[in-house]
Amino acid sequence: MTEQDLMDPKRQPTLAGVERAAKKIAAILPPTPLLPLTVEGRTIWCKAECLQPIGAFKIRGAWHRLTDLTDEQRPRGVVAFSSGNHAQGVAWAARRLGIPAIIVMPEDAPRAKLDNTRALGAEVVTYDRMTGSREQLAADLAAKSGAVVVPSFDDPWIVEGQGSCGVEMREQMLALTGSIPDQVVVCCGGGGLSSGSTLANPDARIVVVEPEGWDDMKRSLEGGTIVPVGDNPPATECDALQTLRVAPITFDILKARNALGLAVTPDEVHHAMRVAFAQLHLVLEPGGAVALAAILAGKIPLTDHTAITLSGGNVDAQLYAKVITGG
Amino acid sequence: MTEQDLMDPKRQPTLAGVERAAKKIAAILPPTPLLPLTVEGRTIWCKAECLQPIGAFKIRGAWHRLTDLTDEQRPRGVVAFSSGNHAQGVAWAARRLGIPAIIVMPEDAPRAKLDNTRALGAEVVTYDRMTGSREQLAADLAAKSGAVVVPSFDDPWIVEGQGSCGVEMREQMLALTGSIPDQVVVCCGGGGLSSGSTLANPDARIVVVEPEGWDDMKRSLEGGTIVPVGDNPPATECDALQTLRVAPITFDILKARNALGLAVTPDEVHHAMRVAFAQLHLVLEPGGAVALAAILAGKIPLTDHTAITLSGGNVDAQLYAKVITGG
Repeated sequence: MTEQDLMDPKRQPTLAGVERAAKKIAAILPPTPLLPLTVEGRTIWCKAECLQPIGAFKIRGAWHRLTDLTDEQRPRGVVAFSSGNHAQGVAWAARRLGIPAIIVMPEDAPRAKLDNTRALGAEVVTYDRMTGSREQLAADLAAKSGAVVVPSFDDPWIVEGQGSCGVEMREQMLALTGSIPDQVVVCCGGGGLSSGSTLANPDARIVVVEPEGWDDMKRSLEGGTIVPVGDNPPATECDALQTLRVAPITFDILKARNALGLAVTPDEVHHAMRVAFAQLHLVLEPGGAVALAAILAGKIPLTDHTAITLSGGNVDAQLYAKVITGG
Repeated sequence: MTEQDLMDPKRQPTLAGVERAAKKIAAILPPTPLLPLTVEGRTIWCKAECLQPIGAFKIRGAWHRLTDLTDEQRPRGVVAFSSGNHAQGVAWAARRLGIPAIIVMPEDAPRAKLDNTRALGAEVVTYDRMTGSREQLAADLAAKSGAVVVPSFDDPWIVEGQGSCGVEMREQMLALTGSIPDQVVVCCGGGGLSSGSTLANPDARIVVVEPEGWDDMKRSLEGGTIVPVGDNPPATECDALQTLRVAPITFDILKARNALGLAVTPDEVHHAMRVAFAQLHLVLEPGGAVALAAILAGKIPLTDHTAITLSGGNVDAQLYAKVITGG
């Protein structure tokens, strides 16, 4: 594969691209820990991405994308749309690289995510989730300034960058246990983290987990073709996973590997957040807890070497307090 | 130094002993992460010991002590007294080594700590904190069975074992920043972690932090001789730091290094717990947050390379919910 292939915006993400991203990310961020958790007498290994500087894995794809901007693109800046974690990832990378960033966020995004994105120096433009089109708004802003749009999953750099999480997971598990993961369980919004982690773990069984009612990747995998979320999806606390339609770039990777899709209920998510609080001492946001929720609910047969992602921890205190006290 | 010197129960803990402990612990536990936190524009490095399997650093000293029991001592077991984290540390090490363990705990210890200690297979004996003598109770139990008493700080193995945290801190900071810590800020109950970390960082300025009213190490350091906590100490949520009197073994190490003692208020502790929740996504118990509390309260001049301990995360959900919502 040539260097040009690895930089083509229309390319399919590859393991080589994931490994290139992993090297770039290892140069600036230490690996998040892979923590053991005992579930029904077996150890599962939990990748604590909530411990990233922005509290979520999204820093990975953003760093990979922004560091590959050309000299002409950098001064014109970037535009991203996100419910919050991708927003913070792009803002963090942009600030560190001295690149201007505009982030389009729903006005009902968690307060912590809005505040943190602004605190990272990005310009935040809000929209109404039910009536506005964030894609259109971002495209308009980009057209005006000549900025590069950085999508949250529908982009080869983003998939490869998030896949660096899977590379670390594989290497850490090998160092800790002598075995690579035979099963990788990943939360899924648009599928960036899950498809990237799939590329990074070519020999593992892949399970993707979504909140009930927002399980479009599950239904797409079952149907063999992309199925969007329906017209009236239920309210969900998993704001990080509220993707209305996945993209071919992520879906095709998961489909080719016969990934299993699963959905979890709000109660299952709350239980996982409580277990993470009490056993791991990690703060998880609802969307960051779905993989653990599926494990704890017994929805996934445990293998000898199961690894899961705990993908984010940006949750408002009131909601978190209610969840951990069982309210 | 001979091997016999390193095994003498009456020895003074040394850097060589700390390094021996660190090697033993590295063989079974990956280092907890050293996480950056920005405070007033400067980065401080936070050693996240709440991510240990038992949610606190106490696993270190317990492992170092129990692995050095003789073939005669092992079947007779161990007895420990503890408000909870040392209890879990000893229980964890004992179970892993197949050694019987009896733990004496105050009946008002946090529910999570009592439950977890029992879940680790130890026999728990409770006593009334205000009227019972845990030392006497433990000595009586040990006399009956021939078990070895494992104190929570007044013991060279425990000091050396906890010091392995300081070794990791030094090595990780060097790897991450190119510099070793020039200042180490540590929470202090009996002084095991702080004196061990002092030995591990021979060139650093040492600051120990206690809860207001339980700041006997601070007053001892100021007076140059051991001063116990007074007769009517205030109620404190920092159950892990409720030591009534420090020991020469820990005090002498800190005194010889001119350690600074500081006390923090309950409000300062709560603020630190909230910052850890929102910025680091770590669950800290009150006693685990005092070093961060002192930093955030501006009580310690920040240096270029300050490292602190976040020593534990075993906190009941109701209390935690109240603290993070500012109640």
